[in-house]
Parts: sequence; C-alpha cells; structure tokens
Amino acid sequence: MHTLHSLFFPGSVALIGASSDPERIGGRVLRFMLEGGYQGTIYPINKGEALVQGLKAYKNITDVPGTVDQAVIIIPAAGVETALREAVSKGIKSVQILTAGFAEIDEAGKQQQQKLVDICRENGVRMLGPNSLGLLNLSNKFSATFSTALNGLRPVKGHIALATQSGAFGSATYGMASLRGLGFSKIVATGNEADVDVAECIDYLAEDAETKVICAAVESCKDGNRLRLALLKAAKAGKPVLIMKAGRTEVGATAAATHTGSLAGNDTVYDTVFAECGAFRPQSIEEMLDIAYVCAVTGSLPANADVAILTGSGGIGILMADHASDHGLALPKLSAEGSAAVLEVLPFAVAANPLDTTAQVTAVKSGVTRTLDALLSHSSCATIFAYLAHVGLSPSRFQSTSDELIALKAKFPERAIIMVMLATKEVAAVLDSHGIPTFADPSRAVLAMAGAYQMARRRATLFSPPGARPSAKALGDVSTEAAAKKVLADAGLPMLPESVCKSAEAAATTATTFGFPVVAKISSPDIPHKTEVGGVMLNLQDADAVRLAYDELIRRARAAVPDAHIDGVLVTPMLKGGVETIMGIHMDPTFGPMVMFGSGGTAVELFKDVAFASAPVTEARARELIDSVKSSRLLRKWRGGPQYDEQALVKAICKLSEFGEAHADVLESIDVNPLVVRENGAVCLDAVITLR
Amino acid sequence: MHTLHSLFFPGSVALIGASSDPERIGGRVLRFMLEGGYQGTIYPINKGEALVQGLKAYKNITDVPGTVDQAVIIIPAAGVETALREAVSKGIKSVQILTAGFAEIDEAGKQQQQKLVDICRENGVRMLGPNSLGLLNLSNKFSATFSTALNGLRPVKGHIALATQSGAFGSATYGMASLRGLGFSKIVATGNEADVDVAECIDYLAEDAETKVICAAVESCKDGNRLRLALLKAAKAGKPVLIMKAGRTEVGATAAATHTGSLAGNDTVYDTVFAECGAFRPQSIEEMLDIAYVCAVTGSLPANADVAILTGSGGIGILMADHASDHGLALPKLSAEGSAAVLEVLPFAVAANPLDTTAQVTAVKSGVTRTLDALLSHSSCATIFAYLAHVGLSPSRFQSTSDELIALKAKFPERAIIMVMLATKEVAAVLDSHGIPTFADPSRAVLAMAGAYQMARRRATLFSPPGARPSAKALGDVSTEAAAKKVLADAGLPMLPESVCKSAEAAATTATTFGFPVVAKISSPDIPHKTEVGGVMLNLQDADAVRLAYDELIRRARAAVPDAHIDGVLVTPMLKGGVETIMGIHMDPTFGPMVMFGSGGTAVELFKDVAFASAPVTEARARELIDSVKSSRLLRKWRGGPQYDEQALVKAICKLSEFGEAHADVLESIDVNPLVVRENGAVCLDAVITLR
Repeated sequence: MHTLHSLFFPGSVALIGASSDPERIGGRVLRFMLEGGYQGTIYPINKGEALVQGLKAYKNITDVPGTVDQAVIIIPAAGVETALREAVSKGIKSVQILTAGFAEIDEAGKQQQQKLVDICRENGVRMLGPNSLGLLNLSNKFSATFSTALNGLRPVKGHIALATQSGAFGSATYGMASLRGLGFSKIVATGNEADVDVAECIDYLAEDAETKVICAAVESCKDGNRLRLALLKAAKAGKPVLIMKAGRTEVGATAAATHTGSLAGNDTVYDTVFAECGAFRPQSIEEMLDIAYVCAVTGSLPANADVAILTGSGGIGILMADHASDHGLALPKLSAEGSAAVLEVLPFAVAANPLDTTAQVTAVKSGVTRTLDALLSHSSCATIFAYLAHVGLSPSRFQSTSDELIALKAKFPERAIIMVMLATKEVAAVLDSHGIPTFADPSRAVLAMAGAYQMARRRATLFSPPGARPSAKALGDVSTEAAAKKVLADAGLPMLPESVCKSAEAAATTATTFGFPVVAKISSPDIPHKTEVGGVMLNLQDADAVRLAYDELIRRARAAVPDAHIDGVLVTPMLKGGVETIMGIHMDPTFGPMVMFGSGGTAVELFKDVAFASAPVTEARARELIDSVKSSRLLRKWRGGPQYDEQALVKAICKLSEFGEAHADVLESIDVNPLVVRENGAVCLDAVITLR
Repeated sequence: MHTLHSLFFPGSVALIGASSDPERIGGRVLRFMLEGGYQGTIYPINKGEALVQGLKAYKNITDVPGTVDQAVIIIPAAGVETALREAVSKGIKSVQILTAGFAEIDEAGKQQQQKLVDICRENGVRMLGPNSLGLLNLSNKFSATFSTALNGLRPVKGHIALATQSGAFGSATYGMASLRGLGFSKIVATGNEADVDVAECIDYLAEDAETKVICAAVESCKDGNRLRLALLKAAKAGKPVLIMKAGRTEVGATAAATHTGSLAGNDTVYDTVFAECGAFRPQSIEEMLDIAYVCAVTGSLPANADVAILTGSGGIGILMADHASDHGLALPKLSAEGSAAVLEVLPFAVAANPLDTTAQVTAVKSGVTRTLDALLSHSSCATIFAYLAHVGLSPSRFQSTSDELIALKAKFPERAIIMVMLATKEVAAVLDSHGIPTFADPSRAVLAMAGAYQMARRRATLFSPPGARPSAKALGDVSTEAAAKKVLADAGLPMLPESVCKSAEAAATTATTFGFPVVAKISSPDIPHKTEVGGVMLNLQDADAVRLAYDELIRRARAAVPDAHIDGVLVTPMLKGGVETIMGIHMDPTFGPMVMFGSGGTAVELFKDVAFASAPVTEARARELIDSVKSSRLLRKWRGGPQYDEQALVKAICKLSEFGEAHADVLESIDVNPLVVRENGAVCLDAVITLR
C-alpha cells in the first residue's frame, strides 16, 4: 500500500471548520463533498452548531465516536496547530491543511509550518499543504477542496490524473479540461509542500490503477532526485507524464561562453531531466490537455515516428506534414503495393503521403475507411491521421463511417487512428470510447501525437540513476590548470604531456623533450583566467623562444596580479588541427551534477549550441548529447574534411560525467575548454575546476 | 468602384446547372442561396424543369428577361465553354465557374481553361475559378457555394474576410471559425485562379468597408508583385492580413553555404515578403483565427510591445510572461506610482508585472477592475491581460465585473484589455461587443496579441516597391571573378585593387606594386569553383613566391580542366583581420530579386543564420537585415574586440540590392563571399555572378 493511499482513500473524514454557509470556504468544502457523493463518513467539526448542512456536527474532533481516518483543516492559521494536535490524538492517518498563511508569508509562518510537519512526522501522519487547494478522488468520490471551479464544473470520472503545486494552476487546467469533457482519476494541489510534494504524488499515481496519464505542474522542486525517480517510475509503468514548469525564459542571456553554469540556466536543466526521465514538457495548458487526451483515449504511445495522413484537402495535408516534420514525426513514402491498394479503392486519389482523396471520395461507398485500411495494411506507420472536414457535425450522415472506423480500430488495435474534423460532442465521445481521438484543428492533432511520440522515444533511453555513492577519494589540489588537469588525467581524461617549469632554462629543456612548437602558460592559483592577463603564449618554435616566453609570462603575471603566488610556467606541446569542443560539469542546485557539451567556438555563445545530461552518462547517452549539438557536424567529414574520433569524445564525456558524479559533494563546476577532438583521439587543452 | 465589385454584389444571378435535388451540387448552391436570403434576383437555368426549388427556371440564360449581372456555372466541364459564351452574350459582368476538371487535371484542361479566360477578357468579364468553391458575401446575403459546411454552420455576419485558393482549406477555416462564433464579411475561394487570384481579393478587401481583418491562404502565387502590392494596400488601409502558406518544411536542407539560392528556399522568401508587407503568417488555422478574433474585436493593433498582466495565479502569470518574452512582447516594470496605486486597492497584492492579486482579491469590491484601472493609468502598456480563472462561467456573479470592464474599456479605448478566463458564450459575446476579447487558454491569448503586435511593428517599415525599372545598361562579361568584381565595382561595391596577370613576371611586378603579402588566384571562365582545383594561393610574401605561385596555379588549372580557357592569374593584396560576412542576390521565381545577408563562416551553413529582403533595400532595411542575423554580434565589440564598420556593410548591401533590382531581367544569382567588414570600410573578396 502506497504511503499516500490514506490521503486519497480515507474511510472517514473530519472537516475542521465546516460551515453552514455553502458559499464560505469551510462551507464550500462540505458542500462539494456532499455534492460529489463521497462514499465515506463525514464529520463536520464546528464550535457553534449542532447541525451543519444537514449533518450532525461536533465541537471537536475528539468528540467524534470511533476512529477518523483523515482531517481536513480549514480554520484560520492561528488555530491550525491546536486542531492538528487534536486530530493527531484522534488517530488520523493523514491530514489536509487548506489554510494559508504559513511559509508563503514570512519567516514566522515558515517556523509555524515546520511545527506542523514535526507533529505529523512524530505521529506517522501524512500531510497535504498547508496552503493547498485540496484534492479530488473520482474513485471514491472524495473531494476536499474549496475551488469555485466546482460551482459549475463537476469533474467527470476518467483516467487522467492532475498533480500541481499551485491550486490556481490546477483549477485552470481542470476547468479547461472539464469544459472539453476530459475525465479525471485524481486531482491534487500540493500547496506549500511541507510534506507531500508533486514528485511523491507522481510516484503514487504511477501505481494508481485508475490513472493512465499524469498531468503535473511544478513551480519549484525541493528534491530533484525524488522527482527524477518518480518520473522514471511512471515511465516504466507505461504512464505518460506531461509536466509543466513555468519560468522558461529566465535563462540569463548574458552567459559567458566558457562558463558552463551560466550556460545552463536551471530551466534548461529541467528540460533535460524531464526528457531523460521519459516525460514531456508542454508549452501550454492546452497542449498538455491535447496530449493527455490522445494518450488517455488511445491507451498507448505510438511505437514509431511514422505517420500517414489521409486528407480531402491537399492544403491541410501539407500543413499537417509541415508540423509533423517540425516536431520529429516522419512521413514515409507510400509503398508500391500501398499505392496500388489505395488506387483500387479511389482511382482518382493522389496516392502519396499525405494522401489526397480529393472531394470525389464522397462518391465512393466506405471510401475513407477502405482507404485507411489499405494504408494501415501496407505500412507500419504507428499513427494515421484522417482529415474529414466537418462530417462529424452531421451525426446521422456520419453514423456508418463511425461504425466502420470503430471496426477498423478493432482490426488495428496497436495503431493510433486520429480523426481531424469538426464533430459534435456526441460523435467524438463515441469514437473516444473506442480508442479514436478527434481534433478540430489539424495542427493540434499533429502536435499532440508528436508529444506522445517524444515520450515513447525517450522511454528507450531512460536515465539510470547511480547507486549509492561510495565515498570518493579526496580531490586534492585543483587550484591551477596543471593541478586540475592532473586530477582529471587520473580520472581517465586524455591530456597532452605537460610540465610546470620553475625556470626559463627548465622550460627550454622540457620543450626540447616534447618537440616544437610548444605552448607556454603562466601557472598560478591566483590567476584562473590566464588569457586576460596575457598569460598564454602559443606556437613557440625553438628553445630561445621558450626562454623569452618564460620571462615574459612571469613579468606579465607579476604586473597584472602583483601578489599572486606563481608556481612557474606550464609547457606543453602545441597541437594543430582537430575540432575544438567544450565540455563541463555544472552542479545544479536541484538536480545535482549535469554534464554539458558544446562545439564550434563562437557557436556556443552565439547560438547556445550546447546540450546537457544528468551525470553519469552512458556511452549511448553521450552520443545523443553529441548528436543534439548542431556544430557536431564539424566532426563528421564537414566540407570534405576528415571524420574525427567521436568515440574518443564519447569516452571523455563519460569519464568527466563519472568524475562529476563521484565528487558531486565538493564540486561547483568543471570547465574543459577546449577539448580538441582529433582524427585519432581527443585531448583536453585547458581545465578549470571550481569547488564549492 | 473596384473591378471585383460585380463578383460580390451582383443584382441578379443565373445559376447555370441549378438542380431541384437540394443535396446535389447544383441543388445545394441554390438551396444555400435561398437559405442565406440573397437580396438580388436568382434565375435557375435548367434544361428540363420549369420550376426549380420553387423558382421559375429557364432553359437557357439567354431566355431570361432583362439583364443578368452574374452567372454561376455548375455543370460538367464539357458544357462550360458554351454556357459561358451564352452568359457573356447576355451581358454578364462576372462569372463564377465552380466546375472542376480544367488546369488542375491535365494539359487539355489547361488549354480549355485558357479559352474561358480569353472569352472573359475579350468581353470585360471577371471570372472566379474554375474549380472554385465559390463565395459568400454577408452584406447582401449572396452565397454561391456548394460547401457542405453550410449544412450545419450558417455564417454569421461580422468583420473578418476569408480569401483562400483551396476551397477545402477555406471550409476548414470557416467551419472552425463559425463553431466559435466568429463573424464574416466575405468568404471567397479562388480555385484555379485563371483570372481572379487571392492577391486581387486582398486588394479588393482592403477597400471593403465591411472588412476589418483579412484572413488568407495561398498554395502558390503566380504574381508575387501583385501579392506584395495587395498586402501593402491592406496594411496602409489599417487592415491586418493573416496569411497562411503551407509547405514550410520543403526547404532543401542540403543547401551549400555559398549558394545563395539554395539557402533561400522559396518558403523563406514568402516569410520575408509577408513580413515586409505588414502581414503575419500564422502557423495554424487556430492561431490565424485567434489573431483575427482579437483584431476584429479590438478594432486596432497594439501601439507598442508592452504588456501588463494581472493574475490571480502566480503560475499562470509566469506562463504568460514566458510566452510574451518568447514572442516579442515586453513586460515593463511597474512604476513606483503604479505600485502605490495598486497597493491602495489590494494591500496584499504582489505589486509587480505580472501582478498577482492573490485569491484575496475576491474579498475586495471591484478589486479586479480598480486594479486594472490603476495599472492602465500608471503605465503606457498597449495591452493588459486579466486572468480571472473561471469567473465567466457564472454570468450572474460576473455581471458587475463585466459592467465595470466595459466602463474601463470606454475610459481607455486605445488600450487592448484582454480577458483570460473560462466563460459562457453569452458572457464573452457581451465583452466582445464592447471591444474586449476573451480567451480560455492563457498561452493562446498571449500568442494572439504577439501576432497582432508583429503587424503593428511591421507597418513602421513597410517595403517600398521600386518604380518602373529604367532599362539598365547591359551587364557585359561576368564570366570570371575578375569580370564579376569589375561589374560590381562599377556599381559602387567596395573592392581591393587587383589585376589579372598574363605572366609570372607581370604577377610579381603587380604584387610588388600592391605590397606584400598578396593572394593569387587562377582566372578562367571555365573554373568557377577555384578552391576545388587548388586555384587559390594565399599569403604570398615576396616576388619569388608570386612567380612560383603563378606557374603552379597555371599547372593545377591545366591538370584539373585541360581545355579550360585561362585568362591568367589574378593578384590582389592579402587582407588580414575583419569579420567575414556573405551577401548575395537570389532571383526568386515568384518575388524577383531578393538580397541575402549572412555572417560568421560556418554559422551560415550550420545554423542557417542568414536573412533575406526584397530588393532594393533602404539603409534602414539593410540595418534590420543585419540585426536579424545572430552572428552580426561578431561585428559589435565581440569579446572585447573592435566595433567594425557596419555603415560600410549597410552601404554595400544597399548597392548590391540596387544592382540586383536593376538587372533583375538577366540575373540568376550573385554571391559575394566573403564580404569582409573592417574597422574602417568593407571589401568584397570574391564574387560570382550567374546569369539566367
């Protein structure tokens, strides 16, 4: 039994603050619960009245005979602690605190909220809220909420669950969903999340038999790993999760190219984590509901990216093809057999994909459904769209087509058959109940299926969370480039030979050993940004040049940072050719170590052409990371050039990510810039490690 | 009187092919016309029946007493020519040919269609079609269409016009619009566009007093300049044009970076032209209708990009702010006075932008409208959004707020007040009629206003079409780099000194005159791609190097293209520094000469970081072009570097565009790659001119 079961399925509930006025908050909760037909026992708790909305009321929860499973507290904040203590003493298993005025207000409220948490924890009671809009469970008809959305819009039972932090966001979503007839299994608003958060609700809903699709919205996230694990659990349970997170555009635009952290922006990390854990992040409430609708109706995700489109309008077909192509779906060509089969039904059709039936299709008996059958029989497209204009507005004329479509779906149960047409609610409802969704807008139909497919695709490469972290050996000194490189070399990252020399002569000797040309760089823990002080000299061709460079670098460093501790001058071979890339570790405050990869110099900064992944990454994930960066084309026979050693790059990214994960407790960031990928191998030319 | 007036406002119409069967095509047209209540006279033409759907019928249009203004032809293709001749002999001013089976079928159909055009032209008759779904005019209730969409969805009179090429696309749009209650002024489907096309309809609608907003969809465009001029006319008449063009993603992805034409893709050119002419290109039918709705209801476009957001849900506010920021709208900070004014009404509010009223707003009399008043009084935001959850579903509770909103709108008639809430149709209709649009989905509300604002912004810099083109002097030889550069230099484009040398000695002498280092390139009309044959040698440091280079270049050219005509070797100074950009002219088959600008080397190819403009461009437009290319940041003190000479770049783009326009009749393309922008000046280092 999931630990949140008692919150959603109480056998009895005490409403502390129940009111006789059906419009006041405490009255609304009771009214909605009565209207909903809750199957358990309700005990109104009211100091003054013996009868509340027709139910016997009690002055105190302790007066209630027998046990009470759950308390719903809706009295002013000042009285909540006492009420909670009394409820706990009565033996409740869970509590909802709908009252506001705690951590969201001020420090005192925060402390008061913590007291409530402590009381619950000590007594093994689970708490929703405070400042929650409550929850609805359509299974036992339990509703505990004062949302006025219920005044006009009673929820319908269905298979979509909704878990949001913000009650208002939840009401908006629920309201829009209900107006279009979508049904829910459970709806929960977590409010201040003092105990139960959205992540734990997702974890619960992943197990809930009534829930097929999970819609969620987070404003913040206290425990990134808990959210990760909940999303992964839902994905593995085959349940699509559509999760919104507002605040996309806060990403700092002034990020410096070489600073991994500022390139990330917490929001990009949310994107990354959602995708790695199989979830989809819609851009709007309507998009979320569109995807939830197709997933709930079809009961599955498309098995491949291929779609076929049947349309009576060439223009609509092209419009849909545009969207499909934009959003990761593919339109395979119609095979010769498929074409022949179609032309047997519709000799006048444009037998392609999109397939244009032309208006003449209306003259052919069962023309649409027989053509769809031919397309499904002669392709492996997971999805087929049928654009039928406005036929669904004439239920009687559409009846036979509807029957045929239902038979077709029974013949091809694994395929998604998506209608795009104007239709009455009744016509659409019949198709819905047989697994066939209907959209009015062609674009929204395609985008919904594209979202569904993204989740299917992501399930193939879900993130594998690392096990318990063994205590890594201490990092040691990482204060200079040389020290940082040494540490990373020990971790398996590829480095050139290099040496920190203490004199001009030693530098010349070392350079001669390496072979010319060489690079010389100042080595000082007090000068992390060497280029800015002129601390790097490239392409030194002989021993004399190295001697001069040594003296010059020391001089420049002393001039720029007079009291810097100077270790000496780092000498290393000068590398020519290869493709410059950038990789790093960014410690995200919510999700921990994230690995970043970018390529192509200015492209990182100009086009934000970088990608992120949770550490550690597998080789497969590292390859995805490389693929998702546009500039990676530079590695692949660009303009007739060579194929560079991507496998070496993959290994370097993996090693860095493992290192980042192992030392997550002390790291702030790592920047390897550049990591040069060569035709044979790859090598880190510079590295900066920042500790917390 | 516009030349299309007779098509939309016939005083009498003959339906050639009118049928007694109200379900057949010829019967539907008559039925819909009768149901619509057409205010003119209808003459059914039917060979066999004396009475058709209650109207006296005639065997032939020539039998009709008196004059007939328009014929609508709905008989099989074979009889159309004869019917048209008879109608023309009767003195019709316009004709609609709804019959299909002409140019869209085969060459014979095309010829037959041309005959119809010729008949009309000879007699001054305007023709819609053939293969048109007809038109509806809500002013005189004239409808001539067989679209079954009218079976259930009678159009409502309003101020949105719809002009589409595809009848099916038009029906889809009209159907979706009618379901949401949008009203139309005129609806027209141009079909094969043998005479009247969408561009001319836009031109007509720009003058039409009943039309406030024009929705259009094109599949192809025969006359790009006609479309340009029509869009500009609408923009200047203050009428928003929302124009769709399917086929966005056909752009060839294999475009080579240096080939201007393939970088363009005709679709990008449509984007460019629509924007230059003040129109907006929606991505979906729903988006088009959303924007048309706000424009029709508010009657204007927002005067600036600034928006204020009032919300009872922090999360919804952030979501809307995300979309605003993504789509070119701005959220200015609330001023100190504004904040004070708001807090006077709602002491508990988060007085910022978005402004979170918190749920407590319900306890304050007129809290929402007084706060909106404060926000409007203390800011210059052209647009204010009010997110009010689901209040619009309770008409009686919402009545007072509705009244106050209407008063507020009267107080601030120039501002767009946009409601975001769930509402009944009646509640929304009342607000609509007072200029206040309502959206259910917060994201769609923001995107609609963003689209409206884009049109307002574009009106500030509309394209100025060139006047009649004076006959330009002949281009002369452009077969080699040297010849092409000479022609462009004469046109005012900046070039380095250069000389084609006929001997190694001459090359050495020339180089010495220029000063070292120099570049040497093979000069041959038969070797356009010099780099591919090793025909370019850089950084030659002295006379000896130039002599050796000369011989080597000649040897390489002879080896690669044995029978090439070789002019000699081009010698020019070697330039260091500056930013490499690329510019060109692409002759678009629809829209004529387009100027292209890009920057940053690989960015052009990897990120398609290029922009287009119709030639000729003004300096202001050239600056916009530069601004719209991300890599242009490289010109502007990038990473502490210099400010390069953008004014020289602007001038070069203008000169090239003027040259392209002047020689549009002979040019295929021009590629200037690279155009190096220096701290002082700019210079074309290579140029290829391709003639048609």
